Amino acid sequence: QGILERLDAGEIVIGDGGFVFALEKRGYVKAGPWTPEATVEHPEAVRQLHREFLRAGSNVLQTFTFYASEDKLENRGNYVAEKISCHKVNEAACDIAREVANEGDALVAGGVSQTPSYLSCKDKTEVKAAFQKQLEVFMKKNVDFLIAEYFEHVEEAVWAVEVLKESGKPVAATMCIGPEGDMHGVSPGQCAVQLVKAGASIVGVNCHFDPETSVETVRLMKEGLQAAKLKAHLMCQPLAFHTPDCGKQGFIDLPEFPFGLEPRIATRWEIQKYARKAYDLGIRFIGGCCGFEPYHIRAIAEELAPERGFLPEASEKHGSWGDNLSMHTKPWVRARARKEYWENLKPASGRPYCPCMSKPDGWGVTKGAKELMQQKEATTEQQLKELFQKKKF
Amino acid sequence: QGILERLDAGEIVIGDGGFVFALEKRGYVKAGPWTPEATVEHPEAVRQLHREFLRAGSNVLQTFTFYASEDKLENRGNYVAEKISCHKVNEAACDIAREVANEGDALVAGGVSQTPSYLSCKDKTEVKAAFQKQLEVFMKKNVDFLIAEYFEHVEEAVWAVEVLKESGKPVAATMCIGPEGDMHGVSPGQCAVQLVKAGASIVGVNCHFDPETSVETVRLMKEGLQAAKLKAHLMCQPLAFHTPDCGKQGFIDLPEFPFGLEPRIATRWEIQKYARKAYDLGIRFIGGCCGFEPYHIRAIAEELAPERGFLPEASEKHGSWGDNLSMHTKPWVRARARKEYWENLKPASGRPYCPCMSKPDGWGVTKGAKELMQQKEATTEQQLKELFQKKKF
Amino acid sequence: QGILERLDAGEIVIGDGGFVFALEKRGYVKAGPWTPEATVEHPEAVRQLHREFLRAGSNVLQTFTFYASEDKLENRGNYVAEKISCHKVNEAACDIAREVANEGDALVAGGVSQTPSYLSCKDKTEVKAAFQKQLEVFMKKNVDFLIAEYFEHVEEAVWAVEVLKESGKPVAATMCIGPEGDMHGVSPGQCAVQLVKAGASIVGVNCHFDPETSVETVRLMKEGLQAAKLKAHLMCQPLAFHTPDCGKQGFIDLPEFPFGLEPRIATRWEIQKYARKAYDLGIRFIGGCCGFEPYHIRAIAEELAPERGFLPEASEKHGSWGDNLSMHTKPWVRARARKEYWENLKPASGRPYCPCMSKPDGWGVTKGAKELMQQKEATTEQQLKELFQKKKF
Amino acid sequence: QGILERLDAGEIVIGDGGFVFALEKRGYVKAGPWTPEATVEHPEAVRQLHREFLRAGSNVLQTFTFYASEDKLENRGNYVAEKISCHKVNEAACDIAREVANEGDALVAGGVSQTPSYLSCKDKTEVKAAFQKQLEVFMKKNVDFLIAEYFEHVEEAVWAVEVLKESGKPVAATMCIGPEGDMHGVSPGQCAVQLVKAGASIVGVNCHFDPETSVETVRLMKEGLQAAKLKAHLMCQPLAFHTPDCGKQGFIDLPEFPFGLEPRIATRWEIQKYARKAYDLGIRFIGGCCGFEPYHIRAIAEELAPERGFLPEASEKHGSWGDNLSMHTKPWVRARARKEYWENLKPASGRPYCPCMSKPDGWGVTKGAKELMQQKEATTEQQLKELFQKKKF
Repeated sequence: QGILERLDAGEIVIGDGGFVFALEKRGYVKAGPWTPEATVEHPEAVRQLHREFLRAGSNVLQTFTFYASEDKLENRGNYVAEKISCHKVNEAACDIAREVANEGDALVAGGVSQTPSYLSCKDKTEVKAAFQKQLEVFMKKNVDFLIAEYFEHVEEAVWAVEVLKESGKPVAATMCIGPEGDMHGVSPGQCAVQLVKAGASIVGVNCHFDPETSVETVRLMKEGLQAAKLKAHLMCQPLAFHTPDCGKQGFIDLPEFPFGLEPRIATRWEIQKYARKAYDLGIRFIGGCCGFEPYHIRAIAEELAPERGFLPEASEKHGSWGDNLSMHTKPWVRARARKEYWENLKPASGRPYCPCMSKPDGWGVTKGAKELMQQKEATTEQQLKELFQKKKF
Repeated sequence: QGILERLDAGEIVIGDGGFVFALEKRGYVKAGPWTPEATVEHPEAVRQLHREFLRAGSNVLQTFTFYASEDKLENRGNYVAEKISCHKVNEAACDIAREVANEGDALVAGGVSQTPSYLSCKDKTEVKAAFQKQLEVFMKKNVDFLIAEYFEHVEEAVWAVEVLKESGKPVAATMCIGPEGDMHGVSPGQCAVQLVKAGASIVGVNCHFDPETSVETVRLMKEGLQAAKLKAHLMCQPLAFHTPDCGKQGFIDLPEFPFGLEPRIATRWEIQKYARKAYDLGIRFIGGCCGFEPYHIRAIAEELAPERGFLPEASEKHGSWGDNLSMHTKPWVRARARKEYWENLKPASGRPYCPCMSKPDGWGVTKGAKELMQQKEATTEQQLKELFQKKKF
Repeated sequence: QGILERLDAGEIVIGDGGFVFALEKRGYVKAGPWTPEATVEHPEAVRQLHREFLRAGSNVLQTFTFYASEDKLENRGNYVAEKISCHKVNEAACDIAREVANEGDALVAGGVSQTPSYLSCKDKTEVKAAFQKQLEVFMKKNVDFLIAEYFEHVEEAVWAVEVLKESGKPVAATMCIGPEGDMHGVSPGQCAVQLVKAGASIVGVNCHFDPETSVETVRLMKEGLQAAKLKAHLMCQPLAFHTPDCGKQGFIDLPEFPFGLEPRIATRWEIQKYARKAYDLGIRFIGGCCGFEPYHIRAIAEELAPERGFLPEASEKHGSWGDNLSMHTKPWVRARARKEYWENLKPASGRPYCPCMSKPDGWGVTKGAKELMQQKEATTEQQLKELFQKKKF
Repeated sequence: QGILERLDAGEIVIGDGGFVFALEKRGYVKAGPWTPEATVEHPEAVRQLHREFLRAGSNVLQTFTFYASEDKLENRGNYVAEKISCHKVNEAACDIAREVANEGDALVAGGVSQTPSYLSCKDKTEVKAAFQKQLEVFMKKNVDFLIAEYFEHVEEAVWAVEVLKESGKPVAATMCIGPEGDMHGVSPGQCAVQLVKAGASIVGVNCHFDPETSVETVRLMKEGLQAAKLKAHLMCQPLAFHTPDCGKQGFIDLPEFPFGLEPRIATRWEIQKYARKAYDLGIRFIGGCCGFEPYHIRAIAEELAPERGFLPEASEKHGSWGDNLSMHTKPWVRARARKEYWENLKPASGRPYCPCMSKPDGWGVTKGAKELMQQKEATTEQQLKELFQKKKF
């Protein structure tokens, strides 16, 4: 059954987790460019991660094609582009995802994400061409549906949906925004309306914010759709990092991004609470993004097992709410094999010299921005911001 | 070249990371029993993790035979033992490790760990028989050397070393103790002395404590050896969790063990500091245990690259001290591509309602222990402790 | 010169600090009823505190008549009212304030605050009568001006201003609200407009919120006045406690109120920052409320000494930004005698088992509220809230 | 009855709180020199503070003669000494203390503390002369007993006791040390033994460490006395600041000393726990030092009221464990009028950008120390430490 049949029937669809972050920690993705050439270079590593998510309960395997548009691969990862074409990266991604999806009951979703072309103010035709190029591979490889994800500007997201929609396949669209809306100030509600009007059947958010904030953003999208009398399925794929202290740009602005985020990683219990909240709001496509490891996806599947009627395969190796701890050697650890214990735990960081909140770092306050000011026509911070805004950079 | 040739020549040998924790998060190991039947059930997952560590710089691949003694597999994991014999688990572990080791320049180490037989007061003969059984597999599969690790009692560790030593292969021995010594109160210095006298060529600690505490414990071992005019190579494989607040039993007693430890996870930069400290103390076998993911091992290899003269393969995908961030989209993130930034960062937890320290949970204060008191002959906490102590439980 | 002459001339007027909290710690005020019978029982203690504020730089000494309306003294402090009449408490307060004011260059302000009559839904006539009674004493004792302070509802504050205004003396009015406005949902801007229209020459906030939040609330009041094309002087007398985590009711709802607030106490340097922010916004009547001790008031006077051209008397015993530390015994303490040190210090709490934020406690979540639910006609939380709301209790 | 009669009879004697810190906040003492010229300049302020402590339950009023030796007043406070002689400061201190003591049932204790003469290596005769000079005033004014307090070196404390002992009055001696002992490395047990042998009838600690650490230090003193088969009464007057993170020098080394200590201030409930612990150890002279305000002393008196059979006067204005909150306006605050609430509260700091622990600052790491290194003969940190050590500075 296809994605829309499942959602229309009221099924819960569980997404997968964040490939670039997980594979960066495993040694196959470079932080900074964040490009997915590993599909060609190390297919076994990508395959294994897909398999783990499948086992953890994912019903959708996204092709590992994040930032795999040609302009991105050329622009940032040119050391790669010389050897590995955009085409090959996308093809390999499709093949691997399909191979693993066939091992279980999962759909393959071809994914596109925001492009350097848009950020550097290329026109609509050029930006759409980038998506078109990826789409051709997805069609050739016959993915089950398409996801436009990780867009900071709804304008570009709409363009992506328009391209993908022409394929005839179902299209989902998620933006990496919080309650304050997109980088041009379009509210979540308005973003949702525009995406649905452009042809998306499923809308929501991914990345940039923690689960709690992301569910709140989807709530605002839902309100916007209701006000506009539009219908769509809702989707949520947040970070597995706590980010109560971030600004409009999300975790990118936190001083800990991307190499000091460890103390912010969510526990499995926190993800169970997220899954419940998302479900209660009516979200039925529930997954994760950066920071989500297989055990976080399993936590979604376990929390919603009563509604779904089954556990994922990986729960063979996990007791609900820690109940396998009854087999631990130490008696006081055995005493932790119960829900109330984990539900109420306030985990300590073991970092007595660190604060619990950070001040976001973004515009104007950084060395980088200031250096740019010196190099460019901007002479005030305000001008610099406008410059960047204009360049959407 | 063998392990001793390398260490004798002054080489730095990099160990691998923690399999049970990493594979639990990937969905292949059950927390509680913590047994390694995945070697038979899901060899591809074990193989992939070995490969990632190899790529990250590990010179030693330990067979995934933690808690793989027959008594353990029967005792805690009997649901498994029916289907999968101890023999098969150990054989498969050796085969997988050797296969991956052959892909690079790594040694295979066969590993044994503490047994339920000892903890339930079985006699020396019986305990030694358990080690002997695993050793037979290691010899048949011709591992390169042997490691006796994760012992809370030096008495049992000595027995393990005695068994392993008979094989003629080099033996390393690490205990899961902190500066307060073993569970019977034997000091780290005395533990080291006994292990070397029993035949270990390499001694140190693994698991239970954070890097800082573990290096301090090895320092005490070194002092003990010097005082006794004994020589041995030093080894350290700590947790990748911050545990300044734990007691004698290490992280087991922290309320966050094992499912709420996320805020305590070390960053790559903290691991670089550990690698430097360990090196400066004269430790030359430097690795990790629970919590260590491939990127933590890579951090050791990168920190010690000046001494070793080369970087690990996985550094293709990692710039030293974040320098690939110069390719990030946002200018203020590009401004983080420098050592001082990451070296001085005090990462926030994003958890304003959580404390930074916990009170260890161990004896007498838990429901589990209290229930035991009611069931058993012990009527006071002191009696209970003695009872457990006697049972080594 | 009177208060308006001073403010009209652009002078900075420094208020005093919080009497009920300071005298509770000194042993003369009871937390709970918070009534000021100490003016009669222990005049020397009240006098000494006035003197310390005068010395610290206060230009206004408020009569210690907080909660000194007859209905309050009878209602909550009836153990007191038998012996000490409302009249005597207010008279003694005026006498003491005047005595100390004469020792320096300070004005005496007679103060009224919210009444139980209003909270228990007595009508306008009755509530105004309570203020009238206190006003008679203030007129007889000839205070220099009047302050209506600590009102949660603008309706009652307006009534108070109307009563006080009839005296012909200048009237200041401050509410204990934050950016969300009064308990009936009237915004800060609207509150300010109503108070000025009722006759207040000076408006602002006092109590309930920390300095940062309070300055923000006054900013909203200023905007409201500008939008309504009204003019008034601005005033701010916040808590000396950090309360970033409180809700609409301010620090009352924090679990630490009133006996566990110590870790939240502001340092003198934090108060200097507040004074500067308040000044920069155009606030010229700058003082404090609960938690402000004499050294906090001195910090305001020291921060604004460049603008005012003089230091307060108590600065004889205080070097600007710690410069008297140059006379400390220890060399490393002497090294702290500089502004950057104190300005940048992030003070630790020494409380590793405590969180840094709390969840406010208010409606519905407390035992007290739940017990009330059982005793009363309310059967749901919502009904309970409405019940309380109706009773303004 | 004299101090020894009371203690010999098993009575609990409650000390007073910290004058220099309390009066610094009130505007009468200068941080840095910390000298008590306020006895002459502002006797009413000193008198009021004594009165508050008496009211709070103090049975002993210490003359405000801290750092009132002639060498100290000349050395650090010479701006003062020109006008106010050491003699006058000490005399006024005695007069004020006696005047207030007569208002209740309290003893007056004349106090001496460590001298600059000792720290700058003057000989025994000269140091003793400084104490002698103060003693003459105490004898003329006929104080009830004598306290030698705030000594970092037991050698000087012994000299002080020897001088005071000649008067024939009972002598108490407290050092400002922690479990690591005095600045020359003499253990707490040994310090206690030397002080008793020199003639002290009461020994213990004051200042520099938090209540918990101070009680532990007195425990070590008690053990030392028992081992030496000596008898003495025990005394404890700690800080009211949490200092788990300080080093051997106590709170002086914390970066927050002295102007950023607010987040560390103990609540009244924490002081009640201290009083109980001190009592349980057998300490019968229980008071406080820097940071102790009257309400902290009252907390001691309230905690020990069951043993003593009465409450202090100031408890008229304080309900045991918050029970007067039953008269608060808000129902959820009324719900806090109970012991379990306050006993279990983990108070938040409201400071999400601050850590909870600090690194002590002392030797070698400070600008001050480094500058000294440049000016002096010392060329290494070690030499600098020795230089300071030799100079006892």
